[in-house]
Amino acid sequence: MANNGNANGNVWQFKGNTATSDAAAVALRKLVFKMFRNYNLNSGKPILAPSPGDPSASPSFLTCPVAEEAVAAAARSGMANSYAPSPGILKARRAVADYLNGELPAKLKEEDVYITGGCNQAIEIVIDSLAGNSVANILLPRPGYPHYDARALYSCLEIRKYDLLPQKDWEIDLDGLEAAADENTVAMVLINPNNPCGNVYSYDHLNKVAEMARKLGIVVISDEVYKHVVYGDRPFIPMGIFASIAPVITLGSISKGWVVPGWRIGWMAMNDPNSILKSTGVIQAIEDCLDLTPQPSLILQEALPDILEKTPKEFFDKKIKAMRQSVEFSCERLKDIPCLFCPKKPESCSYLWVKLDTSMLVNIKNDFEFCMKLVSEESVLLIPGVALGADNWVRISIGTDASVLDEIFDRIKTFYDRHAIRKLPNSMGLLQIYNDQEMEICFS
Amino acid sequence: MANNGNANGNVWQFKGNTATSDAAAVALRKLVFKMFRNYNLNSGKPILAPSPGDPSASPSFLTCPVAEEAVAAAARSGMANSYAPSPGILKARRAVADYLNGELPAKLKEEDVYITGGCNQAIEIVIDSLAGNSVANILLPRPGYPHYDARALYSCLEIRKYDLLPQKDWEIDLDGLEAAADENTVAMVLINPNNPCGNVYSYDHLNKVAEMARKLGIVVISDEVYKHVVYGDRPFIPMGIFASIAPVITLGSISKGWVVPGWRIGWMAMNDPNSILKSTGVIQAIEDCLDLTPQPSLILQEALPDILEKTPKEFFDKKIKAMRQSVEFSCERLKDIPCLFCPKKPESCSYLWVKLDTSMLVNIKNDFEFCMKLVSEESVLLIPGVALGADNWVRISIGTDASVLDEIFDRIKTFYDRHAIRKLPNSMGLLQIYNDQEMEICFS
Repeated sequence: MANNGNANGNVWQFKGNTATSDAAAVALRKLVFKMFRNYNLNSGKPILAPSPGDPSASPSFLTCPVAEEAVAAAARSGMANSYAPSPGILKARRAVADYLNGELPAKLKEEDVYITGGCNQAIEIVIDSLAGNSVANILLPRPGYPHYDARALYSCLEIRKYDLLPQKDWEIDLDGLEAAADENTVAMVLINPNNPCGNVYSYDHLNKVAEMARKLGIVVISDEVYKHVVYGDRPFIPMGIFASIAPVITLGSISKGWVVPGWRIGWMAMNDPNSILKSTGVIQAIEDCLDLTPQPSLILQEALPDILEKTPKEFFDKKIKAMRQSVEFSCERLKDIPCLFCPKKPESCSYLWVKLDTSMLVNIKNDFEFCMKLVSEESVLLIPGVALGADNWVRISIGTDASVLDEIFDRIKTFYDRHAIRKLPNSMGLLQIYNDQEMEICFS
Repeated sequence: MANNGNANGNVWQFKGNTATSDAAAVALRKLVFKMFRNYNLNSGKPILAPSPGDPSASPSFLTCPVAEEAVAAAARSGMANSYAPSPGILKARRAVADYLNGELPAKLKEEDVYITGGCNQAIEIVIDSLAGNSVANILLPRPGYPHYDARALYSCLEIRKYDLLPQKDWEIDLDGLEAAADENTVAMVLINPNNPCGNVYSYDHLNKVAEMARKLGIVVISDEVYKHVVYGDRPFIPMGIFASIAPVITLGSISKGWVVPGWRIGWMAMNDPNSILKSTGVIQAIEDCLDLTPQPSLILQEALPDILEKTPKEFFDKKIKAMRQSVEFSCERLKDIPCLFCPKKPESCSYLWVKLDTSMLVNIKNDFEFCMKLVSEESVLLIPGVALGADNWVRISIGTDASVLDEIFDRIKTFYDRHAIRKLPNSMGLLQIYNDQEMEICFS
């Protein structure tokens, strides 16, 4: 294209914002689609990547007809067509407050709740509302959910990691957390029930977390999106119970409990009995953010009260029973695959979080390579731990029925067998490492 | 609350991000709710603030049953429950491409379209994708839609205004636009059909805009959200026709055409036959942004193809006929209110954009005061021009039926009569300005 005589000699003056790339690079969506691109379309095997809301899921993992009908009724009501106020409509805010209030000593009012486009948008708004100070930092769990990392990067909030301890039922390493914090720390993120570890925190541990947050002078962002996917013996305790010790912003959505992450409706609740979030300007920043960001569909907002109030207990019971079966089945099948080890049977969420031992494999350096080769060779998509902040771990989605799980573990086993190390004396009498393919060459 | 011994002596280290406030301050949502707060709940008059999708609207301004049924079917299909890919699902992207392709010489492919949560989210993503250079600036129309201003502020993109000319059918002042641009200008925003002026740009004028964009080396962001609300003689011409001259990003949604702004489903289309948006990294930045921002509900994405393809022509015809009647009726009633003057009868959108003559009023300095007093005294909500970048103009929403419009103009007339200047000789024989209330005191 010919130069058209701009002062700077270039035809086009604009260029894409590269600041988004660094943040997007750690987003899970980006990774999953990179994984998908490694799928071999000519393999003849359908890709297995269990995901909540998958239309091929078994009946135990489908959503509740009450929820579907609530949305259909809202679409036809004519009441969901106009612009909604930025914080969400009052009836939806009230329904969420009622839904969360059960266990809370300081009850939420409707104005303490903001409706968002799923929990992800709640994360975006909360992180952005706490940013703005160039030296501020935020404490994120390792392993954790990478949307926090992506959005903290995007909002120029320094990320500091604290560890979850496999040997202590995935409790938070509170000493490490304290050591990571300083006078510029503004918040910590707690994921409970925990994705990816599958644990649920005890009352006593959460109490200690609150005391530590108070000691450090930080707000607790409590991501409770999996509160309806708890199937172990330990009950789920909402962090909001401890809000009189340190303020708690509770994030949630219907995505996991109702198996509808595609619907995109969630919330943020300000557990702030001492009005600290208000006096520090956090509430104002959140409300300003809400005026600038996309609003969730009013159809979903209109439907939300019925979804939260009218879903029968049997729906959750059935799903929990199915998850228990999936966990038992998956842990059993995992025993056939020596390079993967699950330190703790999950009691929540829909994953096995397993340690990968690369020393048992040939030509697989790390979890990322393991997952990339697995999807390419066996059309099974697992999430490499590095994406969640933990090297040489792997997240296996198990929220699906036994026949799919059976096929997934068959394929992982085949993959393991093909790449497993065999130790045989070579021609020099020394031990030499081989995998199956090399052995075929040796002995053919 | 007692100090707990932080190094800096404060209990709480976090505070709300104030950077959001400046941007939110210019957002239309913020202003509308400020206006609402000036409504006198004890007035005994219901507030009149016609808004698209208002559940109290007349049948001519309700949405189409085909659209409602498409959403209901999507909610029940089980196909809208899982996570969607960040750019949107292919069937929705393809449907939008087909929908826009009619008039375009260079046809859009499905991968040229991204699905967004309404046109507002498309604005957010495009602006953010073009930002990142601290000296860059963007050309916005005056008057214009303030979400562009809010998001440019938020993304640290300098705003430069170009004028729309009332004496030239609201054409763009291209000389002024050229003078406002420099080597750091990256884009211009064009709103066609135009909110708030109500004009539609001609083929020749758009051709000149494209040539100017090429001369300046900038991308054209063409906001065509009102393309289905055109009722004058001049046809709507999509800017994408001129994309071989300068790249065009077309923004749109179903909000205005289907009268459902609450549903939140829209799109961005890359009219880029010469791959300039790709080679300059804009496409990559947009895709990165999409990985970081809320996804529109998959229910709406699933429903979108049926909404775009199956809505009968009669639905739009009926709405256009109703808008023509509203325009005629409103322009007639406006004649009773001398302080408001409409220089050009609108041929698109759902507003009268009128000049306010404050010299005919007592104790009303400007458009903002006019609108604040009007909502307080008469419970009618108009948008002050200052919010759209133009002092002493007012936007009156007229997308509603005659009985509501009649009441709106009755109330504005009453308000005018109460605040209109009367010129009478005072006790010194000089002309003194009075309004109705002062005259009552004088003569009582």
